[in-house]
Amino acid sequence: MRVASCPLCAGADAATSLVAESSLYRVVRVLDAPDFPAFYRVIWNDHVAELSDLDDEQREACMEAVVAVERVLRQLSPAKINLAALGNMVPHLHWHVIARFHWDSHFPQPIWGVRQREVVPTPMSRLAVDPETLDASVRSAVAALAR
Amino acid sequence: MRVASCPLCAGADAATSLVAESSLYRVVRVLDAPDFPAFYRVIWNDHVAELSDLDDEQREACMEAVVAVERVLRQLSPAKINLAALGNMVPHLHWHVIARFHWDSHFPQPIWGVRQREVVPTPMSRLAVDPETLDASVRSAVAALAR
Repeated sequence: MRVASCPLCAGADAATSLVAESSLYRVVRVLDAPDFPAFYRVIWNDHVAELSDLDDEQREACMEAVVAVERVLRQLSPAKINLAALGNMVPHLHWHVIARFHWDSHFPQPIWGVRQREVVPTPMSRLAVDPETLDASVRSAVAALAR
Repeated sequence: MRVASCPLCAGADAATSLVAESSLYRVVRVLDAPDFPAFYRVIWNDHVAELSDLDDEQREACMEAVVAVERVLRQLSPAKINLAALGNMVPHLHWHVIARFHWDSHFPQPIWGVRQREVVPTPMSRLAVDPETLDASVRSAVAALAR
């Protein structure tokens, strides 16, 4: 099901880049949050609002994808992975998967909280890998999933 | 595994009340966030930091519990359910499961974001059920899970 007014039903947008997709979901990298250079989203393709709108098999497929992205991000040795499905603005099921670092602008606050520090040099330059390499790892991990 | 310095390994605390428990996790109601009167946590019993530290069966059991709580909270007709596993402060796997309402103090911002309004009368008084009844529904839903 697609909803005409829903930006996540509309598909691609300039604030994200498509990294991987399946018949059930797509994985995008978030481009408009430069404070958080390892930030992906798993977006369920169908327009459902809540995780509990999925049946068991769908939910497991969704969480497998979230965890696959998480496992790739853990290779960056983050302080923590943050997972969140909020959707208050866009009630179409999507998971934020964010690698958090001790040096990042908001740590240990949530990314939606109060900035803790300025980060110089740029966050992206602090990652051990470039974003294209990270994307390739995420793409490969998602492709390896059964569904 | 338990970690002596971890407040979630220590068990009960004054900021939450125990609602349900299994051999794998416990569910507590959050008492120290009066802005959010329908706010529960699913806390994994073992001291693991990330969702991807669980094996597939454990992860499914964990997410089943999260979704069971979510389904109960949806009976309150919230604007949205918010799910989050952050753990930047306490890196012991726990899920926040929060019913959000159009009238709540922060909506549509995350609960960690900027307050949007003062809420009078109290948020708890706006729920259609009292917290003990809600707890009983959560306890019953979690008890009905297979594991």
